[in-house]
Amino acid sequence: MAKEIKTIGVLTSGGDAPGMNAAIRAVVRKSLANGIKVKGIMKGYNGLLNEEIVDMDARSVSDTIQRGGTVLYTARCAEFRTPEGQQKGAEICKKHGIDGLVVIGGDGSFAGAQKLAALGVSTIGVPGTIDLDIACTEYTIGFDTAVNTAMEAIDKVRDTSTSHERCSIIEVMGRDAGYIALWCGIANGAEDILLPEKYNHDEQVLINNIINNRKKGKKHHIVINAEGIGHSEAMARRIEAATGIETRATILGHMQRGGSPTCRDRVTASIMGAYAADLLAQGKSNRVVGYRNGSYVDFDIDEALAMQKGINDYEYSVSRVLAI
Amino acid sequence: MAKEIKTIGVLTSGGDAPGMNAAIRAVVRKSLANGIKVKGIMKGYNGLLNEEIVDMDARSVSDTIQRGGTVLYTARCAEFRTPEGQQKGAEICKKHGIDGLVVIGGDGSFAGAQKLAALGVSTIGVPGTIDLDIACTEYTIGFDTAVNTAMEAIDKVRDTSTSHERCSIIEVMGRDAGYIALWCGIANGAEDILLPEKYNHDEQVLINNIINNRKKGKKHHIVINAEGIGHSEAMARRIEAATGIETRATILGHMQRGGSPTCRDRVTASIMGAYAADLLAQGKSNRVVGYRNGSYVDFDIDEALAMQKGINDYEYSVSRVLAI
Amino acid sequence: MAKEIKTIGVLTSGGDAPGMNAAIRAVVRKSLANGIKVKGIMKGYNGLLNEEIVDMDARSVSDTIQRGGTVLYTARCAEFRTPEGQQKGAEICKKHGIDGLVVIGGDGSFAGAQKLAALGVSTIGVPGTIDLDIACTEYTIGFDTAVNTAMEAIDKVRDTSTSHERCSIIEVMGRDAGYIALWCGIANGAEDILLPEKYNHDEQVLINNIINNRKKGKKHHIVINAEGIGHSEAMARRIEAATGIETRATILGHMQRGGSPTCRDRVTASIMGAYAADLLAQGKSNRVVGYRNGSYVDFDIDEALAMQKGINDYEYSVSRVLAI
Amino acid sequence: MAKEIKTIGVLTSGGDAPGMNAAIRAVVRKSLANGIKVKGIMKGYNGLLNEEIVDMDARSVSDTIQRGGTVLYTARCAEFRTPEGQQKGAEICKKHGIDGLVVIGGDGSFAGAQKLAALGVSTIGVPGTIDLDIACTEYTIGFDTAVNTAMEAIDKVRDTSTSHERCSIIEVMGRDAGYIALWCGIANGAEDILLPEKYNHDEQVLINNIINNRKKGKKHHIVINAEGIGHSEAMARRIEAATGIETRATILGHMQRGGSPTCRDRVTASIMGAYAADLLAQGKSNRVVGYRNGSYVDFDIDEALAMQKGINDYEYSVSRVLAI
Repeated sequence: MAKEIKTIGVLTSGGDAPGMNAAIRAVVRKSLANGIKVKGIMKGYNGLLNEEIVDMDARSVSDTIQRGGTVLYTARCAEFRTPEGQQKGAEICKKHGIDGLVVIGGDGSFAGAQKLAALGVSTIGVPGTIDLDIACTEYTIGFDTAVNTAMEAIDKVRDTSTSHERCSIIEVMGRDAGYIALWCGIANGAEDILLPEKYNHDEQVLINNIINNRKKGKKHHIVINAEGIGHSEAMARRIEAATGIETRATILGHMQRGGSPTCRDRVTASIMGAYAADLLAQGKSNRVVGYRNGSYVDFDIDEALAMQKGINDYEYSVSRVLAI
Repeated sequence: MAKEIKTIGVLTSGGDAPGMNAAIRAVVRKSLANGIKVKGIMKGYNGLLNEEIVDMDARSVSDTIQRGGTVLYTARCAEFRTPEGQQKGAEICKKHGIDGLVVIGGDGSFAGAQKLAALGVSTIGVPGTIDLDIACTEYTIGFDTAVNTAMEAIDKVRDTSTSHERCSIIEVMGRDAGYIALWCGIANGAEDILLPEKYNHDEQVLINNIINNRKKGKKHHIVINAEGIGHSEAMARRIEAATGIETRATILGHMQRGGSPTCRDRVTASIMGAYAADLLAQGKSNRVVGYRNGSYVDFDIDEALAMQKGINDYEYSVSRVLAI
Repeated sequence: MAKEIKTIGVLTSGGDAPGMNAAIRAVVRKSLANGIKVKGIMKGYNGLLNEEIVDMDARSVSDTIQRGGTVLYTARCAEFRTPEGQQKGAEICKKHGIDGLVVIGGDGSFAGAQKLAALGVSTIGVPGTIDLDIACTEYTIGFDTAVNTAMEAIDKVRDTSTSHERCSIIEVMGRDAGYIALWCGIANGAEDILLPEKYNHDEQVLINNIINNRKKGKKHHIVINAEGIGHSEAMARRIEAATGIETRATILGHMQRGGSPTCRDRVTASIMGAYAADLLAQGKSNRVVGYRNGSYVDFDIDEALAMQKGINDYEYSVSRVLAI
Repeated sequence: MAKEIKTIGVLTSGGDAPGMNAAIRAVVRKSLANGIKVKGIMKGYNGLLNEEIVDMDARSVSDTIQRGGTVLYTARCAEFRTPEGQQKGAEICKKHGIDGLVVIGGDGSFAGAQKLAALGVSTIGVPGTIDLDIACTEYTIGFDTAVNTAMEAIDKVRDTSTSHERCSIIEVMGRDAGYIALWCGIANGAEDILLPEKYNHDEQVLINNIINNRKKGKKHHIVINAEGIGHSEAMARRIEAATGIETRATILGHMQRGGSPTCRDRVTASIMGAYAADLLAQGKSNRVVGYRNGSYVDFDIDEALAMQKGINDYEYSVSRVLAI
């Protein structure tokens, strides 16, 4: 029989992502509407273990939906990866009367939620990562803002790259996943896209493509390089040496994690946060919220963590055909 | 047996939408890669009837993916709604050697494509409208840019509305559909959202909500009003009279149709355009491209035009709960 | 001999302008650094008369430099235009130990500051208005953000206006001054600019220009109309009737007052606010801060209010020549 | 007696800057209005020596005012620094009937213009550089767009820096000049600003400041580092080692040169370009356009190149006081 939930906690964990505040706001306000009290846990599992826990009401999240970052802060926490840390976390939840917990983050954060669920704290994961690398859902909070930030920066680099007839290598985030790189590659009309899932490290193919494009009269050559491949500076030096074409690397870096969230991120985060609050109110535990087939759904965390996804072959092949 | 396609045309029709250029570019380049020639038809069906038809190559669409509007222009065309107009259109296609046609636009434009298909011109529809009101697809090109433009404008209105402790009514586009209004309503944390699909025209409820919010100490009150309801100026005057609170209307208007497309619009338009080109290359006709369940798919136009969709009740109810 | 200042107040008055928060922050922090206490007065002179006065420290203005609107709120105040209201205001300042006051606003707000100065409260005006209509200074806080907001919106309208080959009339703010209209007119390459300072209301000239442009093959015709002229909707209907060209009006409205301030507004507001704090610390009163000839300067309020400025004839004539 | 000018050339030289297209457009259209023909010279002095010269009319510059980069391309040219190269350039001008030349660029480009003037080609320089490092003018085309691009990126880095309680070092452009760094430092409320004109390379002061801020409870610490100081990555590693606080470097790079120009850049570039065209029409030569004291003015190139400017001490000191 489902446990009755009187008080929940909410935390953000792992790398921050734009829209996390919208998700927190939704968890708080929907839970209050469901008659459930809410506590905010600062700095992820770290703050849980340090008991950095504050009461939240509807006004605690006023004027936050449009803000980047996370008002609850975030951190990685080595201690919580140990059974002792997890046990301690569950006990602190009980001590503070926290019956349920919404964890906004990525796969690593959900693994922690899974452990707490096994220790009797009802947990729900909400997918918040700019990397889009959570297999159970078509969308993760933050991806849209990150790709738009990267795309706009690349549009600007392209302007100056064209003016100077340069080759530009632009490194985007995404850790081991190439989704940000693929989307920017398509959206910026990049001449080359290097994805961890696809790149065979044959740099001569890249060099030949650059030389051929210059022969065809193209004024710029944009290479989007994924973080999972990296080493953009050295790559730029090698390409310049091999092609004789001035080549510059730009590593977009942390700006991709910040900024006011886009409409898609605010809306998705709001619905996912509310949905998570409702799952707890219904007595559910060990679930991850997802978006699939036009609807919000939920999966068992164990099942979710076992799923796989990858780059869509048709989309990748289209990206290559359009960049002629 | 499928007709062999040697040359296709592409046109944009109805209201313009950001991303239409990305779709045109993809149709052109993917068709060329498929060994098919491409002609651009200017100003929608109007330009077809006037034979405003130009040859396109890969360079015709260079440097367009990031541009708003449509390089092929668009128009509405009364003559093409008549059987005589449609017959004339089919004959002009034949005269110019156009075996297939990609029509980028909304339901009205697809109805025209359906007629041409019946007259022997292979046609494929690509959903391009900021209104999101095409039932066979989860997404239509232009929606994301339009909602972000509207959301950013509303964020700005909210700043000044708060400073002056005003009530603001902001009218967004969407014709008879409330999708733009709902998304902005959620993303801007609007206190009230008036949707054609939901609003019962009981203005007293709205007035009471405004008065109650002020009593609770809220410094602003944002009402998102959908184009399908309209009359925002008169509404503002009535509300100011009834509440005594300074109330201003802003009609965002045509800016919502323009601007450089967002990443989602560029990517979706690119894949949809390529997909449409491939359908013609495969000898298909009378189909509409859609995005469903994480994949690009296609439907018979007759079937697609018969489908219905509406505002999701859960999302709407969440939007109301979060705006406390 | 200059009065020693121990505590100052700061208020924002009149229409809000982006950058006002940066100015407040600078007044607060520079005064604290000068060893002077600061109180915030809410809602302009209105809040002064209602004694809505709060203590401010360095943290009161944390995380505000990038925010639109004004954290002190603003209002117009009829009572403060009377000698009785002004006397009451001066007495409330004394009651709260406020020796000096920084007033961020426009000419109307400075007139109030002048009265308080005569009644023994040291006052300094800081030019904060999007309208740029303060004669003693080359720049007023908020103008840059407002013109960029308007310009970006007009760029978007232009995209769709071109796609549909429409004429668009876009009304921008500025009250009786045409600076926003002139800058947008130049920056957007508008075919016509209607300024209160220049327009002779001969609409036939405008109509002829629209017809001639269409004959020359121009795909759009953008008319920037200043708020001081107004009536854009009726103008659009008359133009459409006279030219036969589809014509639409957009009134940009209050969004021009909001939004995160641009770099110029944040920087100028920061220096002007600090400069005002320093003037008070030096025992000055009845002064207005200005920016002239590359430096920050100050003028006697009486002198400042008597100055005149207007549209630069060369800039206006260039705007007309470039729009061919 | 002033030489009569029938045909002029226009080129962009050195690093590109947003607004260069607006300046080119103004040179072209104002000259045409003055009855003078215009030729575009591609890729700076390089294209002059290679005779990459094209005729321009009013339509050549349509739809360019809002575009980043330069439609005439730009390059550096070693050959043109030699007397032989300069002689050859003057001869090519004569061969193509080019009586006058507008050079849009920085000090280095003006030095070339000076040489051509001595060889009988009337030349006018227009200050186009994001670095603001031209002493004769308060403003240079491109600075405003560049600082806004940098500021918006830094706002985003700050979001995530706060969420993770990190120290962030952000390197902005400006070559040997600290104007971009100073403006961003003020506009982003940076805790530290390192300017080539001010920084004494005592890193311990910086480290102490970071430690003290953390003790005071500040959640982030933003250091803006100017390109002229550089080495941000190594600095980050040293700071992390010395403070124990996670520290990340971001080098914003070439994106600062691109993007659609801001209103200020479009307006200033338009007036400066028109002003340069008028100077040539009046028979002037060897002049640089500037903006001073609210007006557009011009100086002898020799005089202009001899002027000095630097960081304003009051503005710098204010930037330090406000960052408490």
